[in-house]
Amino acid sequence: MKQYIEKNKERFLNELFELLRIPSISSSSDHKQYMHKCADKLTQFLKEAGADKAQVFETEGHPVVYGEKIIDHTRPTVLIYGHYDVQPIDPIDLWKSQPFEPEIRDGAIYARGANDDKGQTFMHIKAFEYLVKENKLRHNIKFIFEGEEEIGSPSLAKWAKEHKKLLSCDIMLVSDTTMISDKVPSINCGMRGLAYLEVEVTGPNKDLHSGHYGGAVLNPINALCSMIDSLIDKDGHITVKGFYDDVVNLSRKDRDMLSRAPFDIKEYKEFLDINAVAGEKGYTTLERTGIRPCLDVNGIWGGYIAEGAKTVLPSVAHAKISMRLVPNQDCKKISKLFAAHIKSIAPKGVKVKVTEHHGGNGFLIPISSNAYKAASKAIGEVYGVEPVPSRGGGSIPILADMQQILNADPLLMGFGLERDTIHSPNESYLLSQFYMGMESIALFYKYF
Amino acid sequence: MKQYIEKNKERFLNELFELLRIPSISSSSDHKQYMHKCADKLTQFLKEAGADKAQVFETEGHPVVYGEKIIDHTRPTVLIYGHYDVQPIDPIDLWKSQPFEPEIRDGAIYARGANDDKGQTFMHIKAFEYLVKENKLRHNIKFIFEGEEEIGSPSLAKWAKEHKKLLSCDIMLVSDTTMISDKVPSINCGMRGLAYLEVEVTGPNKDLHSGHYGGAVLNPINALCSMIDSLIDKDGHITVKGFYDDVVNLSRKDRDMLSRAPFDIKEYKEFLDINAVAGEKGYTTLERTGIRPCLDVNGIWGGYIAEGAKTVLPSVAHAKISMRLVPNQDCKKISKLFAAHIKSIAPKGVKVKVTEHHGGNGFLIPISSNAYKAASKAIGEVYGVEPVPSRGGGSIPILADMQQILNADPLLMGFGLERDTIHSPNESYLLSQFYMGMESIALFYKYF
Repeated sequence: MKQYIEKNKERFLNELFELLRIPSISSSSDHKQYMHKCADKLTQFLKEAGADKAQVFETEGHPVVYGEKIIDHTRPTVLIYGHYDVQPIDPIDLWKSQPFEPEIRDGAIYARGANDDKGQTFMHIKAFEYLVKENKLRHNIKFIFEGEEEIGSPSLAKWAKEHKKLLSCDIMLVSDTTMISDKVPSINCGMRGLAYLEVEVTGPNKDLHSGHYGGAVLNPINALCSMIDSLIDKDGHITVKGFYDDVVNLSRKDRDMLSRAPFDIKEYKEFLDINAVAGEKGYTTLERTGIRPCLDVNGIWGGYIAEGAKTVLPSVAHAKISMRLVPNQDCKKISKLFAAHIKSIAPKGVKVKVTEHHGGNGFLIPISSNAYKAASKAIGEVYGVEPVPSRGGGSIPILADMQQILNADPLLMGFGLERDTIHSPNESYLLSQFYMGMESIALFYKYF
Repeated sequence: MKQYIEKNKERFLNELFELLRIPSISSSSDHKQYMHKCADKLTQFLKEAGADKAQVFETEGHPVVYGEKIIDHTRPTVLIYGHYDVQPIDPIDLWKSQPFEPEIRDGAIYARGANDDKGQTFMHIKAFEYLVKENKLRHNIKFIFEGEEEIGSPSLAKWAKEHKKLLSCDIMLVSDTTMISDKVPSINCGMRGLAYLEVEVTGPNKDLHSGHYGGAVLNPINALCSMIDSLIDKDGHITVKGFYDDVVNLSRKDRDMLSRAPFDIKEYKEFLDINAVAGEKGYTTLERTGIRPCLDVNGIWGGYIAEGAKTVLPSVAHAKISMRLVPNQDCKKISKLFAAHIKSIAPKGVKVKVTEHHGGNGFLIPISSNAYKAASKAIGEVYGVEPVPSRGGGSIPILADMQQILNADPLLMGFGLERDTIHSPNESYLLSQFYMGMESIALFYKYF
């Protein structure tokens, strides 16, 4: 595939840039038109790459793109999952170039979606194109690209159930994760789940003058802060009642296997400019993000937040709080436990309302499978080093659902790197990873 | 004055409405032009009311309006202080009518500034007009209206020092406070001071994906919440080191005198729709707002606060935090103590930056003074009940400064009511208070 890339480099980048220029932010109701535009563009690319069939399916939310090339029903079928929606772009002033005008700087593409997941999805279309054009395709290939991954895939599971036959496959191939580094390639063999809730704390029924009432009326911001503080104890344990009930503690052997991944705590702290890491007592940094659950406030707001000073004792305070879960924790159960807990710890003088956002379960991928072995061999050949099995801290909630619906295991061949800062300003994707990713994918089909 | 009001009611309201229509929000740099417009309008009103001199003075910030009528240098001089700037109007969607288009509903004027402080200031111009037109003026009258009270009067003290002679007076008369109720009139004999700071907590140097880093990197929102939680202990005491050092504990006798003010806790809770009051252990609600200091978060923000869900572990979190102080606490000292304390409690993994907003000291007004007695007699006559001395929880930071600069005590004849919800949406001012306030002011001059 190396030569094919060399010959088509410019076209590949031009096409990817067309995709990156479409501001397909799934969480914003203003951007609906761009979701359709992006879906149409992907359909076009699939057809041009050699798909027999490629079409846009409407769902209750953003559209799904489906494409396929069936060569022989007796051969294994690979379903490639990707998503074309992206995260919002705020804080916009921290971007060095326009988020939707891709730019190449220092060997990397900078744009929202450069990695997550337009860049990684696009590699699959081009690896497929190569196999078709060079007559090397030996598998049935199906593509499914959704537009709601960043908002928790609210429509895809239902749609997949209705189109179970269309999607039937042997494995699901996904590039939406990271490697440990480009020197230490790795394959994700598990992801965390997610429970995401919004908490609204109401004190007095109107904003008050903090001079007239301060000291006598419980301030809902202060109350919310106290409640949040109590959610994690001094050892880094989450205090939500029943939270750890279904957490499977890994054996020493399993922990040792995962700890083989090289990790430099000094570099890690320098990269983030922090003087200390934090987290659950008794676990390493890689374990804290890989095999242990956690709780984060993703957003908080209340009172006067504009320029200057306003002496207000506000009526309402809000927080968006999410928990990353490990396999065997059920996101619906955890959401219920959290809602009950946060209500139970509300002090007198405030009322609490909880709303659920999307969630999803974590999952594990068997290292002993043929698919994992083929991916390992392919990546090992391209990178010159055997990849390490790793556990990803992020979540692709829909994959656990799809695994159940289609009865097929996912395989996570991710080529992102930490430095890509996905979900943040200046998201990027290294060109070298983009090209080596495509090569690895093409080789995977050789060994699978 | 009653008859004079009856005869001129319509004109009074029309003029006040002209003032209320000017959106003189001092904290917003977009509203600068309106500050000048409002100052000019007041100058016009002062002249029309009978001032010999009325002019706008430029300061380093928003302009100051000065006016006077000197009848006899041997007679006492009353300096009337007021402010024409108003608070911001957010949250705008909670207003029932336009904040800058005054409307009369159920016997009250609804508009931003209806009470604080355009409505209350305007009563003084009209009481003065009455005395002049009816040849009843027996005092030298000076007016000073500032445009920066709501942002902590950053320019007035300096300007007043430079114009000390112009402002020389025997007492400062101010209507910028509330009464206990229109059935139980009261005169403020003390105000709290204020220290207002902004805290910025930075964790990692960029927004992170909460899946990849959650559990291993301290989240600055979680850290800020813990820090805020620790600022007040379970007994409602502020934990800032040295905070209570200069607080004078009132004698049982003084506390008993203040507790004569009628207060219905049931009504109070119903008015605010809260199931419990809160605050410092060992003090009543009126004491908590009147004679004790307190700490409130006036605003908090960080991470993703728009529609939907974003799985971000943010780089920065902010809070605006203010403390109401009691007389003898020095706002500059408290600000320093707070800044040092909040930095000292920052956990490893985050950095803290503190910025000071405006502040001011509290003050006490002697009940035994002639001015207090005259005000008490005047209000008693108009309301038919002797007013109660009370302690206001709010702050007019500039008054403590002016008291020092001009060597004259303030007298707080406030006619606002709790129901006016100043600083909040639907600020209002009862017409009955507006008229009875004018009468009381006119009578005050008779007895002073």
